[in-house]
Amino acid sequence: MDELLGQIRGPEDVKKLPADQLEALCEEIRKKIISVVSRNGGHLAPNLGVIELTVALHRVFHSPGDRIVWDVGHQTYPHKILTGRYEKFDTIRQYGGLSGFQNPAESPHDPFVTGHAGAALSSAMGLAAALEQRGDRDSRVIAVVGDGALGNGISLEALNNVRGHKRHFILIINDNKMSISKSVGTISTRLTKFITGRRYNRLKTHVKFLLRHLPGGLHLIHFISRVEALTKNLLVSSALFEEMGFKYVGPIDGHDLPSLIENLEKVRDLNGRPVVVHVITEKGHGCSYAISSPEKFHGVPAFDPETGVILPPPKNTKSFSSAFGESLLRLAEDHPEVVALTAAMAGGTGLSRFAERFPDRFYDVGIAEEHAVVFAGGLAAGGLRPVVAIYSTFMQRALDCIFHDICLQNRPVIFCVDRAGAVEDGPTHHGIYDLSFLLGMHNLAILCPRDATELDQMLQAAYRHTGGPVMLRYPRSNGADLELPRATLCWGKAEEVLAGTDVAIWAVGRELSTALAAAARLRTKNISASVTNTRFLKPFDEEKLLADARTRLIVTIEDSRDADGIGRIVDRLLLNSPNCGALHFSWPKEVLPHGSVPLLRERCGLLPEQIAQRIAERLSRRTPS
Amino acid sequence: MDELLGQIRGPEDVKKLPADQLEALCEEIRKKIISVVSRNGGHLAPNLGVIELTVALHRVFHSPGDRIVWDVGHQTYPHKILTGRYEKFDTIRQYGGLSGFQNPAESPHDPFVTGHAGAALSSAMGLAAALEQRGDRDSRVIAVVGDGALGNGISLEALNNVRGHKRHFILIINDNKMSISKSVGTISTRLTKFITGRRYNRLKTHVKFLLRHLPGGLHLIHFISRVEALTKNLLVSSALFEEMGFKYVGPIDGHDLPSLIENLEKVRDLNGRPVVVHVITEKGHGCSYAISSPEKFHGVPAFDPETGVILPPPKNTKSFSSAFGESLLRLAEDHPEVVALTAAMAGGTGLSRFAERFPDRFYDVGIAEEHAVVFAGGLAAGGLRPVVAIYSTFMQRALDCIFHDICLQNRPVIFCVDRAGAVEDGPTHHGIYDLSFLLGMHNLAILCPRDATELDQMLQAAYRHTGGPVMLRYPRSNGADLELPRATLCWGKAEEVLAGTDVAIWAVGRELSTALAAAARLRTKNISASVTNTRFLKPFDEEKLLADARTRLIVTIEDSRDADGIGRIVDRLLLNSPNCGALHFSWPKEVLPHGSVPLLRERCGLLPEQIAQRIAERLSRRTPS
Repeated sequence: MDELLGQIRGPEDVKKLPADQLEALCEEIRKKIISVVSRNGGHLAPNLGVIELTVALHRVFHSPGDRIVWDVGHQTYPHKILTGRYEKFDTIRQYGGLSGFQNPAESPHDPFVTGHAGAALSSAMGLAAALEQRGDRDSRVIAVVGDGALGNGISLEALNNVRGHKRHFILIINDNKMSISKSVGTISTRLTKFITGRRYNRLKTHVKFLLRHLPGGLHLIHFISRVEALTKNLLVSSALFEEMGFKYVGPIDGHDLPSLIENLEKVRDLNGRPVVVHVITEKGHGCSYAISSPEKFHGVPAFDPETGVILPPPKNTKSFSSAFGESLLRLAEDHPEVVALTAAMAGGTGLSRFAERFPDRFYDVGIAEEHAVVFAGGLAAGGLRPVVAIYSTFMQRALDCIFHDICLQNRPVIFCVDRAGAVEDGPTHHGIYDLSFLLGMHNLAILCPRDATELDQMLQAAYRHTGGPVMLRYPRSNGADLELPRATLCWGKAEEVLAGTDVAIWAVGRELSTALAAAARLRTKNISASVTNTRFLKPFDEEKLLADARTRLIVTIEDSRDADGIGRIVDRLLLNSPNCGALHFSWPKEVLPHGSVPLLRERCGLLPEQIAQRIAERLSRRTPS
Repeated sequence: MDELLGQIRGPEDVKKLPADQLEALCEEIRKKIISVVSRNGGHLAPNLGVIELTVALHRVFHSPGDRIVWDVGHQTYPHKILTGRYEKFDTIRQYGGLSGFQNPAESPHDPFVTGHAGAALSSAMGLAAALEQRGDRDSRVIAVVGDGALGNGISLEALNNVRGHKRHFILIINDNKMSISKSVGTISTRLTKFITGRRYNRLKTHVKFLLRHLPGGLHLIHFISRVEALTKNLLVSSALFEEMGFKYVGPIDGHDLPSLIENLEKVRDLNGRPVVVHVITEKGHGCSYAISSPEKFHGVPAFDPETGVILPPPKNTKSFSSAFGESLLRLAEDHPEVVALTAAMAGGTGLSRFAERFPDRFYDVGIAEEHAVVFAGGLAAGGLRPVVAIYSTFMQRALDCIFHDICLQNRPVIFCVDRAGAVEDGPTHHGIYDLSFLLGMHNLAILCPRDATELDQMLQAAYRHTGGPVMLRYPRSNGADLELPRATLCWGKAEEVLAGTDVAIWAVGRELSTALAAAARLRTKNISASVTNTRFLKPFDEEKLLADARTRLIVTIEDSRDADGIGRIVDRLLLNSPNCGALHFSWPKEVLPHGSVPLLRERCGLLPEQIAQRIAERLSRRTPS
């Protein structure tokens, strides 16, 4: 099938192809991406939107000498296919396979890891400045940035600093009129809208017409040209890009290959100052169901490639995200001061229904996590009860805001941290780092629900806790209710769900199900394990932990890196207390790769049978004191 | 002396004062600030620049019903003096006294803590949105933002989201043409430059002149008015503020009280959409030495109020910052690929001489820590060796960039983290939180120098360590060389500087001097303590620590919060190892207030004699095994 792709071993082969075969090449790429993503899951609509642009870039520029940085890196599937990774493309996002983002470890054609949106401009400017420092006048640095990513604070800080970087630097705005959920904000919209220059062009036509037809026209030349100079200067230059020293080219139809190639060739041959190329693309281009639901097909699980029907989830599952969405909706019905915030993740965090039901109480600020958090601080200071729904990995962007604008000021903001723990997407996206910085936050309560019902109870408890900020933290995994007795939720108290005498397993959040399965295995080895649902990492149930530790080996199971949550708390508690030792289970210290989470668990020894085995070994090694 | 200030118990008294006494009030405030800051140290030039603005704000608006948020909060001395804190003003920045920033715990006139620049717009927008949600149509939210803070990513994200907030919101740009060191960047400059509208006004005059004097002038009316409408629309509206839905007022001379009051009254009576008021101020206004050296008098230690001569530091002192500046200069002389970056802190971090010597290798990106870090990542990817000098507290802004753009990619960037540990400025500025998130960073080496010479050696070692990122971390305190033998610096190895048999004290960085003093005290109690200079927090010298722990009580001394650096490492190491226990000394878990660091040390039990006492008690409690 892939007649042309079979010939493409790298960007040089894209250049060798006859021009009239390029459209066919795009079609092969399009089919390949739909076929692989329908099996593996991944980012669909963003990649379908940039196929022609990618082909044009590799037709015109010389990667890896010319460096192409994509923001965000999940739109690099065509780039991967054209840069020597076609044959491995079937493995994308699978354990041991290609990453779903740019990754220098994978290919010299990936100059930078770009998993989080908004950083490519800064890193590309750094690459360009390095070329300048080193006297390289030939290479180019090309940053392809989506209009959503352009509204992120890092992008804006970068634009604010671009003036000094005169050469080498080409910014391609991939303007698909939406970020992940929708384009929010003025600057990014304006940046792209101004420079289309339509009003300027219309004005110029007027002026020329009048010059020719009006009496005294010739006398007007000087005046008009001054007006024109000023107008041009101020219209186009007021388009911040020109003010920043960029030359502006565009807008270009991002699916018109000849026009793309022609314009990029012109841009390549310019030198002396940064260039911005404004490309209009359509998310999901060439695939009807992806065009009609670009948000749904932004990042998707496996689906039917013919119809776009997403395979139904297994029975008896319910995501924590949807459980959160339902719980918040109930809370908001009863309490008009509850408002919700997200940073371009309304769908992913389960807030879509809230947004429909309470449009005036819903704030999607775009890819602007810092602003989201500080804004929530202001809402709380104004007497409202803001709920900020955010992914663990993106919350890293807002550490200082959580510290300075929420926790230090003890503002009653509720954070609902989704995608905590490992995720398929890999190192840039794992939610396994948050506790390392959150445990040290003043005044912050941290709760981890075991299932959907507990999430609901915790959200209500968070609402009642008016004395300070509260964080609920849960994974992407199944949050369906565990069939277990349910003790009343008491602030700061753990819940023992199983009694035992040899080992005390403390599980955090959904890891409770792992703990129960491990305890069952231990019973077959005649080891009696108690199992405790930690519930609160802060305030932590020190009393119960210390009591358990006196007579039993403490085992912790959590989804953080290097036991950096409950493990760290236990370490400190046991430091100078009588105890039988502790054994921590968590994601390892080393970088955790991408791949299916069950597979990652197995590789890291986090399956129940592996945990039970290690506990048994540890107990057998212990010499009676 | 303070005849008028004596009558001002709150903003209402500012309104009662006859208009012709307001200038005199400003003079009293000015004198008071100079007098107190010359004794206590603090922020001088920024406060002298906003005296008239503050008086005008309190003349016109009704705080605390109207909420005034200052960005950044170190320009609130006049605000504090006028809002009931005049009598306590002598205590500013002193332990138990007034904070140097806005602080809701201190006064209802401080709606938000504003210690870090760039957050006020977002929090004020939150306050305004809360008023809207609650149906309050009368109150106003006023954010006073410096032109430097406006270029920060959070401000820009906020501006990008302001459109939705139609009422209540007044942004006052305090345009003093510099951030802490100098105004950097296009957006902030442009934002303030565009809207002065000078070019627009000139153009309009031209048009009117020509309309009157040219043949066919009348026929041109329609055309010209279209040009004018378009021009106005695009000139002023292209001033992003108007595009964002702000009404623009200004520019206003920030030291012309009647004009300020008149304009603010107009603004107060507007309603329906956000207003931006552009005020031009002079840093240090009314004080000749502060005007001529606004950076030097931005934040100052005690000085002679007549002459501005800063009191000389005690003999035998040398700051780590200046030691770093000298070391880096030497390194850069030898290695042309070394470049330096800072985020508006060239002077504070010791980089001024580097900037003079190597202007082309120096990047000051303004108050944009995130961009600084990612940009450094790009420079490193391009083959350079960037050194990022940054304060610990501001590094919190860049957690995700350090994680995603440096450490995960293993870029050989050198971070020089200044102001680690406690600082006089208080909770928002203490550098005691960084290790809680930095210890978990993949691939990052963390080194803490004991003194200036060791800093130099570590910087060279960091340069030679091409395999990944390195962080040097040091306090504001005296870094003069300790008179001690100096073992060769070996990567990952600690340095024992004193042998001992009962206790093993491990000190981090400059805390080595505390440890040595404590050991001397212990000798008088017949307790023999070894003292070790940790040198490397990552990679940590586990071997030596475990060997020490087998026979001696481990004592750690560090300048983090809640022993979150070496303390945490030791906890984990000792968890399942034979050991004699451990005792941690660090800043406490609770919020650490502002005040002189020696006083804070005493209150927290961190003086050598207090440490020795607790060690002795601990040893006496230990039952022989």
